[in-house]
Amino acid sequence: MQAEIIAVGTEILLGQITNTNSTHIAQGLAELGIDSYYQTVVGDNPKRLATVIEIAAQRNDLVILAGGLGPTKDDLTKQTLAQYLNVPLVEDAAAMRVITNRFEQTGKVMTANNRLQALYPQGATPLTNHNGLAVGAFYQSPDSADFLLLPGPPREMTMMFDTEAKPKLQAAYGQQSQIYSRVLRFFGIGESQLVTELQAMIDEQGSVTIAPYAKTNEVTLRISAQADTQAAAKAALDHVETQIKAKVGPYFYGYGDDNSLAKVVINAMIKAKLSITAAESLTAGEFQSTIGGVPGVSAIFPGGFVTYANAAKHQLVNVPQATIDQDGVVSEATAIAMADGARAQLGTDAALSFTGVAGPDALEDQPAGTVWIGLAYRDQPTIGKLYHFAGDRQKIRERSVLVGLDLLRHALMADHQL
Amino acid sequence: MQAEIIAVGTEILLGQITNTNSTHIAQGLAELGIDSYYQTVVGDNPKRLATVIEIAAQRNDLVILAGGLGPTKDDLTKQTLAQYLNVPLVEDAAAMRVITNRFEQTGKVMTANNRLQALYPQGATPLTNHNGLAVGAFYQSPDSADFLLLPGPPREMTMMFDTEAKPKLQAAYGQQSQIYSRVLRFFGIGESQLVTELQAMIDEQGSVTIAPYAKTNEVTLRISAQADTQAAAKAALDHVETQIKAKVGPYFYGYGDDNSLAKVVINAMIKAKLSITAAESLTAGEFQSTIGGVPGVSAIFPGGFVTYANAAKHQLVNVPQATIDQDGVVSEATAIAMADGARAQLGTDAALSFTGVAGPDALEDQPAGTVWIGLAYRDQPTIGKLYHFAGDRQKIRERSVLVGLDLLRHALMADHQL
Repeated sequence: MQAEIIAVGTEILLGQITNTNSTHIAQGLAELGIDSYYQTVVGDNPKRLATVIEIAAQRNDLVILAGGLGPTKDDLTKQTLAQYLNVPLVEDAAAMRVITNRFEQTGKVMTANNRLQALYPQGATPLTNHNGLAVGAFYQSPDSADFLLLPGPPREMTMMFDTEAKPKLQAAYGQQSQIYSRVLRFFGIGESQLVTELQAMIDEQGSVTIAPYAKTNEVTLRISAQADTQAAAKAALDHVETQIKAKVGPYFYGYGDDNSLAKVVINAMIKAKLSITAAESLTAGEFQSTIGGVPGVSAIFPGGFVTYANAAKHQLVNVPQATIDQDGVVSEATAIAMADGARAQLGTDAALSFTGVAGPDALEDQPAGTVWIGLAYRDQPTIGKLYHFAGDRQKIRERSVLVGLDLLRHALMADHQL
Repeated sequence: MQAEIIAVGTEILLGQITNTNSTHIAQGLAELGIDSYYQTVVGDNPKRLATVIEIAAQRNDLVILAGGLGPTKDDLTKQTLAQYLNVPLVEDAAAMRVITNRFEQTGKVMTANNRLQALYPQGATPLTNHNGLAVGAFYQSPDSADFLLLPGPPREMTMMFDTEAKPKLQAAYGQQSQIYSRVLRFFGIGESQLVTELQAMIDEQGSVTIAPYAKTNEVTLRISAQADTQAAAKAALDHVETQIKAKVGPYFYGYGDDNSLAKVVINAMIKAKLSITAAESLTAGEFQSTIGGVPGVSAIFPGGFVTYANAAKHQLVNVPQATIDQDGVVSEATAIAMADGARAQLGTDAALSFTGVAGPDALEDQPAGTVWIGLAYRDQPTIGKLYHFAGDRQKIRERSVLVGLDLLRHALMADHQL
């Protein structure tokens, strides 16, 4: 079983965007045990697209086309494929309803070209687009290669590939032994340090493979086992997970691709019925916005404060003017006073505070990246901790938010709430 | 003049790394005015590599191979190319000296395979590797395509391409006419509607091409002109930009790949010395966090409020309890009271408020996506506007923030501050 990925998009050929779609699909193929020996990129040009489809179909059992399913004149992928397969395009009624509803909801006029997004090659199985309007398709052919049609925008493509296409590929090309995998999430350890700690295990690569993947500010490990039954896979994965945790356990915080430090921490707070607020200076609301993204947070989060200017720190969360004058705003005393002041205002169980230098300029003679984070938690003494983060303004702010969440996670663990 | 990029590396095919090398080279080709209609990825396999070299050489004037120049037994790119060209590999004395010195300096034993890194196809011009040991090469052929050999590690490749290869490509292929481009940014119009409005212009595709690209919640148009001089390109781009603005001008807000609605609006506020605050319910600090990302915002942003719970709306920004009881929190009256209350607290020139239903659940019998945005601006009457946004929790919140920025942008325009 051998597949080729063809990314369709002139933006990729011009270097305007990087072809991350092919990376994602390639990872999925590797997990399914489908070989892939070639990848191609071609522009939004039907003649050249037809030639690469021809070449790919000759040298593979499955050809995956990503991009060019949209409503514009440039989007010609499915028309070109239908011509190659010599089948007409037909309408997916469910996709058409979604498109019609979307335009009705937003009160905008639906133009004719939007109908194109509901079409797929006759004989294929349409694939739902959960993050957009263009339908995908899986076409199985008795006498040529099979084809998978995916949209180009990465958010649409990854969702459709993971939830719609992968199960169908697995069913169609069913291996006897399947690959089962589990994602472990770590915070507070870099990828290279994690790899160094686990080097011997990674080199071994027995029946369980260990693949580290660095995301912004955190690292995940995907551990995968090829096994005949789910029980056998679980036993193998459990064994390796125990070995991993023996080495880097303190940095582990949760499982799953669709998880985050915020989800783990906020769900624990909701479960323990512990309320939270925050006073944010350099992060300017990013901590509160992050926890606001977790469904159900309203049960424990009444609101909070963005105290960017010095005067606002005094006015909104009662940081004593003397503290600001004597210690400065980038200080332990101010971080503690902000956390205590915010908690006192809203009567919550916990409060976080963030004060520091996001950059690019220094503040109070302290360089960009200097950040104090305060935590008031139940009956514990309120603490302020100093950090020095590298990177640009946005990186420093993101890192501050995550470190704040990790401080709270440790407080919850010490309190046996996590 | 037409070139194809072939990235060589099994890691790319397995999805372990993303093919950023091709992005970088593609950008360089576009800058040199060299067309590129295809990109290929192939693994470290000499037979398959030979077939893709064959295909690429047939359909191009220049083939760029990146990767597989290292010292391991997997690295076979130049051996395969030399075989295709029917020339031997010869040693670059300068590169060999660097390799020998490196091993002497570090006191490590140089193994025989390291010598491989100094070899290049006879007849080519060797290219110095400033960040590594493997030499590159530029091979000009009278009777086949030309070839450029580059190393795989991005740090080595980008340095060699930019400093060694690009000047040689420019010299070899003469002063090509170059591509100049400009990015126009739009908000409040979907990609398909924008394309419909500009269809005739896009179809024309004269000397200036128009390429729409949808990002999350906004659309950009890249207009590109191929011209011999920068002045000629500027005139052509100006002409097309004027035509575009005649059709969709009200949605245009700025230029550039590295720009955003927040930057445009906040920089105008900074220039006009107009201060701002916000009271956020469903967005939970995301508006303030977004404007907090713009350097220099501290001059006009003292801070603000996250008023998630009903009680916090009353306590922090003085929304009258009667308003909450009679109109509900998802209402025009509450949105206006939040904006007015936040502004009164901090004495700013403007204030935005966000109250609505982020979902997944309904609130006050109103469905997810129902959002009221309030704007208090200088001496204008405070307004509250109702929106219905589609999508999940995160999309609804992001969309709310951008629409709030756009409301402020329109107020600034009406006030001749933008």
